[in-house]
Amino acid sequence: MEKIILAKSAGFCFGVKLAVDCAYESSENELIYTYGPIIHNKNVVGDLEKYGVRCVEDIQEFKKLKKINKNFKVIIRSHGIPLEIYNEFESNNISYIDCTCPFVKKIHKIVYENYKTGKSIIIIGNKNHPEIIGINGFCNNTAIILEKYEEVVDFIENFSQELINYILVVQTTFDVNLFGEIKNVIIHKKNIKIFKTICNATNERQKEAISIAENVDIMVVLGDINSSNTQKLFSICKKKCPNTYLCEKIQDLQLNNLSKNVKIGVTAGASTPLAIIKEGLNYLNRCYQDL
Amino acid sequence: MEKIILAKSAGFCFGVKLAVDCAYESSENELIYTYGPIIHNKNVVGDLEKYGVRCVEDIQEFKKLKKINKNFKVIIRSHGIPLEIYNEFESNNISYIDCTCPFVKKIHKIVYENYKTGKSIIIIGNKNHPEIIGINGFCNNTAIILEKYEEVVDFIENFSQELINYILVVQTTFDVNLFGEIKNVIIHKKNIKIFKTICNATNERQKEAISIAENVDIMVVLGDINSSNTQKLFSICKKKCPNTYLCEKIQDLQLNNLSKNVKIGVTAGASTPLAIIKEGLNYLNRCYQDL
Repeated sequence: MEKIILAKSAGFCFGVKLAVDCAYESSENELIYTYGPIIHNKNVVGDLEKYGVRCVEDIQEFKKLKKINKNFKVIIRSHGIPLEIYNEFESNNISYIDCTCPFVKKIHKIVYENYKTGKSIIIIGNKNHPEIIGINGFCNNTAIILEKYEEVVDFIENFSQELINYILVVQTTFDVNLFGEIKNVIIHKKNIKIFKTICNATNERQKEAISIAENVDIMVVLGDINSSNTQKLFSICKKKCPNTYLCEKIQDLQLNNLSKNVKIGVTAGASTPLAIIKEGLNYLNRCYQDL
Repeated sequence: MEKIILAKSAGFCFGVKLAVDCAYESSENELIYTYGPIIHNKNVVGDLEKYGVRCVEDIQEFKKLKKINKNFKVIIRSHGIPLEIYNEFESNNISYIDCTCPFVKKIHKIVYENYKTGKSIIIIGNKNHPEIIGINGFCNNTAIILEKYEEVVDFIENFSQELINYILVVQTTFDVNLFGEIKNVIIHKKNIKIFKTICNATNERQKEAISIAENVDIMVVLGDINSSNTQKLFSICKKKCPNTYLCEKIQDLQLNNLSKNVKIGVTAGASTPLAIIKEGLNYLNRCYQDL
């Protein structure tokens, strides 16, 4: 019997991989800043610092750097940025490399075009997450942002008129099942055009995590506590396996009661580097060997 | 002594990886077309076909599909597309996912902005390559496109006036050393603003290939014969190691005279999948074992 089951979909999605690889590669010849942490993972951000890549999330700071004539490039991470930040970069002649995930770019386009033709925008997602802040910037920060099921029900019930002038998009890393429920509430009540913009990487990662969590005694979700999609993975798994733990490194986990019959499942968020996953697996294997 | 030396930088660069992964993932829920082959590799294109992903490089064809109301999305590959194709997609309401490599996008931006302010554009690269066709589309197809050293010398010498109204960009996968020579010719003669837009992945891959080719008896470059960057890798290695071979699969190579003292180096172009590289290494290992 296999003791440790690792999700195939654990770790970096291609959008994150692109941005991180781009930061490492560009740092070889140029002074590179990232607009905000490249991913929600301290290890990666810390390692990039060793290569001279610094994280700044303040347009005023970039303007100052430009004034003292520092030659640099800014990497836009996979989460994307609001339209006004693009405009600031342009008008201040700040050079950037755009690593916005193509699936997020797609949402920017949907929101921008619909907003231009007079539609109002609803975003399902976390209003503090950079992806959502970025998307909201493509409709002049006018979007209605809802995250919880209750918020959606409340919103729908308190809106007396038809919502034909609204369109709805959803954060790429949103909980697939919860979005299904939210969608059901909405389509029964209102006639809103819904764009299902959850990305497939998220879809796959969540589906696989559920099927593993259902079949193990302990489920471990590796990732940074600040990573939105990691938190969602955790709460999804917790529903299926009560002994689900979110840890930045597997070593943080207390495995006092481990016995040979215990089965452990492992998955990881989109911002968790392969090194952390590999290290985790080695650690677990050693724990079993020591029994 | 190690017999087989594999380049760390062999295979997919992150831009290519993004586009290919995006095609596979998107195909799970949607009807996907790619605008032209996603990469210059028959195996990958063939495999994607099994997942229903078809390759079309004809805007008229997309317009027809749209008319019969087919619901589909077009993936723009890492090479990018000309501005007029973006416009065609927009005006015909054809949905697309833009996987243009961020380094190519950067060139589009440089060319577009300089062209708008009245500059003329010189591109160093292969005029038939989709990346160059795409870039040229951002200056209304007016660029002067030069590829060979002699062409550049000829151009420079036959231009009597100063070239202050010109800027120069270079294909991301161009030969780094050749571009160095070309740059020397130009800066000694003319005052052109040069943007060194060769990407770091290419830079690294070529540098590593050279250092391996110098130290082996046989050098193998894995990749499709139609891949521009694979061809360049081949010609670079050939200068350092006369026994350099370009093969789509390592099995195509005749290894009749293999002996235990022969050292083989292996690298691969940006469009060569990991599976081909792994298969190649296994094959070579078996060849040595059979000696």
